Amino acid sequence: MTVYSFENSYGIAAGIARAVGDKLVQLEYKLFPDGESYIRVPQKPEGPAVLVASLYPNPDKRIFEFFMAIEALRHMTQDVIVGVVPYMAYARQDKRFLEGEPISVKIVLETLKNLGLDGLLVVDMHKPSVLAEYWSRPYRNVLVDRLIADYFRGRLSDPLVLAPDAGALERARRVAEHLGADYDHLVKERDRVTGEVKVSTKTLSVAGRDVLIVDDIISTGGTMALAAKTVLAQGARSIYAACTHAVMVKGALDLLLFSGVSEVVATDTVPSPVSKVSVTPAVVDELRLLLEEVL
Amino acid sequence: MTVYSFENSYGIAAGIARAVGDKLVQLEYKLFPDGESYIRVPQKPEGPAVLVASLYPNPDKRIFEFFMAIEALRHMTQDVIVGVVPYMAYARQDKRFLEGEPISVKIVLETLKNLGLDGLLVVDMHKPSVLAEYWSRPYRNVLVDRLIADYFRGRLSDPLVLAPDAGALERARRVAEHLGADYDHLVKERDRVTGEVKVSTKTLSVAGRDVLIVDDIISTGGTMALAAKTVLAQGARSIYAACTHAVMVKGALDLLLFSGVSEVVATDTVPSPVSKVSVTPAVVDELRLLLEEVL
Repeated sequence: MTVYSFENSYGIAAGIARAVGDKLVQLEYKLFPDGESYIRVPQKPEGPAVLVASLYPNPDKRIFEFFMAIEALRHMTQDVIVGVVPYMAYARQDKRFLEGEPISVKIVLETLKNLGLDGLLVVDMHKPSVLAEYWSRPYRNVLVDRLIADYFRGRLSDPLVLAPDAGALERARRVAEHLGADYDHLVKERDRVTGEVKVSTKTLSVAGRDVLIVDDIISTGGTMALAAKTVLAQGARSIYAACTHAVMVKGALDLLLFSGVSEVVATDTVPSPVSKVSVTPAVVDELRLLLEEVL
Repeated sequence: MTVYSFENSYGIAAGIARAVGDKLVQLEYKLFPDGESYIRVPQKPEGPAVLVASLYPNPDKRIFEFFMAIEALRHMTQDVIVGVVPYMAYARQDKRFLEGEPISVKIVLETLKNLGLDGLLVVDMHKPSVLAEYWSRPYRNVLVDRLIADYFRGRLSDPLVLAPDAGALERARRVAEHLGADYDHLVKERDRVTGEVKVSTKTLSVAGRDVLIVDDIISTGGTMALAAKTVLAQGARSIYAACTHAVMVKGALDLLLFSGVSEVVATDTVPSPVSKVSVTPAVVDELRLLLEEVL
């Protein structure tokens, strides 16, 4: 097996190579003066190829580089090629919210398939069902709820795990289960008279409790910040924010801290200052299963 | 027919819509804070859809937007969708120069096909044979030699049309034929003792003549600048540089003028300060032929 890595995925790729005792090869990369990317696979894989590519930042550039690496590898080997994508770009563009919109994640997944990728490992996909629908080859969607729970174990007093909306409740439930804690989700309501948006917990009281708000992605931090302010106003003791993918655009961390969040915790699928939880052990476990399935 | 345009292709798209007397629709566009693009096709096509997208600058972003627009359109209509790509990104990555390299233009062309594009119009493809090889559906490759020749007609004294290398000779021949002029190409030779690179014309003398150097792309301007300096040193009266695609990265125009080029002329496939020749009439003619073929 040979593990190949792009520059922005070296941490996870090195962890995989160490765990499986195999070679790590960094892809050659340059940028032409006109903005086109050049990549080269500097050596043939020995056995299956594992290609590690996190598709952030600069998602369109990262996506096209990933396509190029697969095309080049597919020409070099008849053996299996597996993609490890800690952060999948366009995962939130998973349906046509309005007519005339593309399903962007479908384009990425179907192109990976057409280029000859054999297996795909992703981490905490925004809507995992798109994998079965548009990828339709062997895959693993690595969940990180246990890793998040392990980070907070013993640090929270009378913890309540909160999802910022009903759609994320399942994630809150899983983290809470690992922590042995309660869980709930927030509800957004617009006041019919004043137009003001009110957020409140669905059923449970937060008063005096440590509240851990969990989501898959923190991007601008707006959703998390609103949730934090609401929960603090309702008497929570302190607020912690956790996510899988710390996209965290400029200003997001400041916004969260300013909104009263005591600590922000994320995995390292997108390397960031709050990436305190390594997904590598979970990725390695699932990668073994994926390789068994495709080989 | 409905003509759709991205922001950077509005000039050519408007020209097409005017010429065929049909509707021009600008695609909705926004950029998410995390760098992902959003596009939306704001209305259904009436009859065939013509999608105009020049893939420069920021080629990877432009490519993915083009993919998104096709995916969205394909969902809206059973009718024909034709792409007009005045500048095709990655056209120069058309073979594996070294082992382990991708054929990047193959990825673009095959993905356009997989997304359901029915016909493709490009302008002066770097290596037209890639269209038959990787696109393999109806296409037109619009040549601009006559347009370039028309621009210079009557302005040059005892003109000689020069290709900067043997590979571009055919282009020089076509421009020269339209102009009724001589043509030749330059030859690069490395001095075996000093290692110095020498450039000279293959056969014809340039002394006292107006020399028009033609190429498909001016990117950094390095090739053109070297050619201009050589030809001036050999006694040319004056030097003109012409290209189809004015990629012209920062500093390229200064380099050319500093190297003694009197005037730089390009088409508007990539809008630039030297885009003095419109490809729209030629594109419109070929588009009619392409539509006849796909309909």
